[in-house]
Amino acid sequence: MLYLVGLGLSDETDITVKGLEIVKKASRVYLEAYTSILLVDQSVLETYYGRPVTIADREMVESNSDEILRAADTEDVAFLVVGDPFGATTHTDLVLRARELNIPVRTVPNASIMSGIGAAGLQLYNFGQTVSMVFFTDNWRPASFYDRIKENRTIGLHTLVLLDIKVKEQSLENLARGRKIFEPPRYMTVGQCASQMLEVEEDKTEGVYGPDSLAIGAARVGGKTEKFVAGTLKELCEQDEVLGAPLHSLVLLGRRTHELEHDYVREFAVDKETWDRIWKADYHGQ
Amino acid sequence: MLYLVGLGLSDETDITVKGLEIVKKASRVYLEAYTSILLVDQSVLETYYGRPVTIADREMVESNSDEILRAADTEDVAFLVVGDPFGATTHTDLVLRARELNIPVRTVPNASIMSGIGAAGLQLYNFGQTVSMVFFTDNWRPASFYDRIKENRTIGLHTLVLLDIKVKEQSLENLARGRKIFEPPRYMTVGQCASQMLEVEEDKTEGVYGPDSLAIGAARVGGKTEKFVAGTLKELCEQDEVLGAPLHSLVLLGRRTHELEHDYVREFAVDKETWDRIWKADYHGQ
Repeated sequence: MLYLVGLGLSDETDITVKGLEIVKKASRVYLEAYTSILLVDQSVLETYYGRPVTIADREMVESNSDEILRAADTEDVAFLVVGDPFGATTHTDLVLRARELNIPVRTVPNASIMSGIGAAGLQLYNFGQTVSMVFFTDNWRPASFYDRIKENRTIGLHTLVLLDIKVKEQSLENLARGRKIFEPPRYMTVGQCASQMLEVEEDKTEGVYGPDSLAIGAARVGGKTEKFVAGTLKELCEQDEVLGAPLHSLVLLGRRTHELEHDYVREFAVDKETWDRIWKADYHGQ
Repeated sequence: MLYLVGLGLSDETDITVKGLEIVKKASRVYLEAYTSILLVDQSVLETYYGRPVTIADREMVESNSDEILRAADTEDVAFLVVGDPFGATTHTDLVLRARELNIPVRTVPNASIMSGIGAAGLQLYNFGQTVSMVFFTDNWRPASFYDRIKENRTIGLHTLVLLDIKVKEQSLENLARGRKIFEPPRYMTVGQCASQMLEVEEDKTEGVYGPDSLAIGAARVGGKTEKFVAGTLKELCEQDEVLGAPLHSLVLLGRRTHELEHDYVREFAVDKETWDRIWKADYHGQ
């Protein structure tokens, strides 16, 4: 059996009891570690599980999945995914490959950022499609997120923006020379995301959002040090120190809001007067 | 401290290790049992936790929350919620009341149907707003879901439809006579939902969807007996026996689809030829 086990969002104790029992009994344990991270190291997980854990990088999962699936028709293999196995990252291709090999698959769900973000106080019912934000470079500034946000905003919905992480990245030089030397991991911050969003709006000038649009920055959702900061996009460009360590996410508010959302989120506002003023003018009762 | 602890979707072992530790140590343990249910009884939970659990019905949570919050400034109180505490049902009002009383609050996230539905094989990125479907009666047929689905479908997005549950319902006669006699619980099925959707389309005739629109019926998501059935809305009117026991949910597909979604979901199709034909004509590459 191939078990896809969600690990939740924060530390080693966010695994479910069911998931932990599977990990303890499986023949082999893999950890998918290129689309999200827990706030604890691999060694903490290994000690907690009492088992060695093999890191499965993108190359292994996408090009060498038969190694992961080896003998899974007769043995139990656990494939661990931060969050939920079918949340922000879906491992449908791994499951499709398992089906081809007649390997049974079972999923152990867990919290995903796509539902965990509800802790910010906005109703999940009122979220539209989710978008991703990648690190811009001088000549690569993909802006497809802009049209998606436009669609959500047109019908008044909130948008969850998932932020890029870069692990096992090689410099161009090391890549060219075939040297397996990796750069330190990078995690996009709320400030970087808000700045890139405003840059793209300046280019496109369709008025999908602007410096005064309300948003929430979220850090380490589901963890003991979980932190939310609410404010305008302009304000959120400068809140990275308050938010602290990764992982960060951002929610851009839609205009279809509920008074309870106002009351709940206001607690997190950078500046409550600004929050109240803009809410009343642009969001309240829309 | 008030702990809001998510229980996940299926049985007693879906609680996280962190959540279980909190439940075992808390002074009092409440279970919110009117917006969703686990697939196991209260007595199973009590045995598993080694603790008595107080059922918190809607009346208690909405009108008598100070009883739940009693002494929570100095003791630990655990409030258990099926799924995630801020998922399909948000307990923001309880948290707001706790804030007023200066009671610290911590959340333990878990799988919600709003992310767990990803196991059906559709990408959560492409879901729009979530809607609810209530049991229609002769003179009460709320159809606001229709406009929401229209908005989602217009931009090509999938829609998760959450289905009504009725617990602690009184007959009109017992209500009038003040008798605390409750009807057996009722859980809406995928078939009932699909029929009601088609009824409303027949009334409104805006062509938001129709008998040939593709959808997925889901039962007991996250549980060992999890079951998905894919087909047209018309086909799904007749699949309740295949789907089996509650809880059920339904996803209406949007046209913005990915080939991987086709391959994954096809496995669940009532009739693969119909699925392929309609997918190719109406969904593929849209």
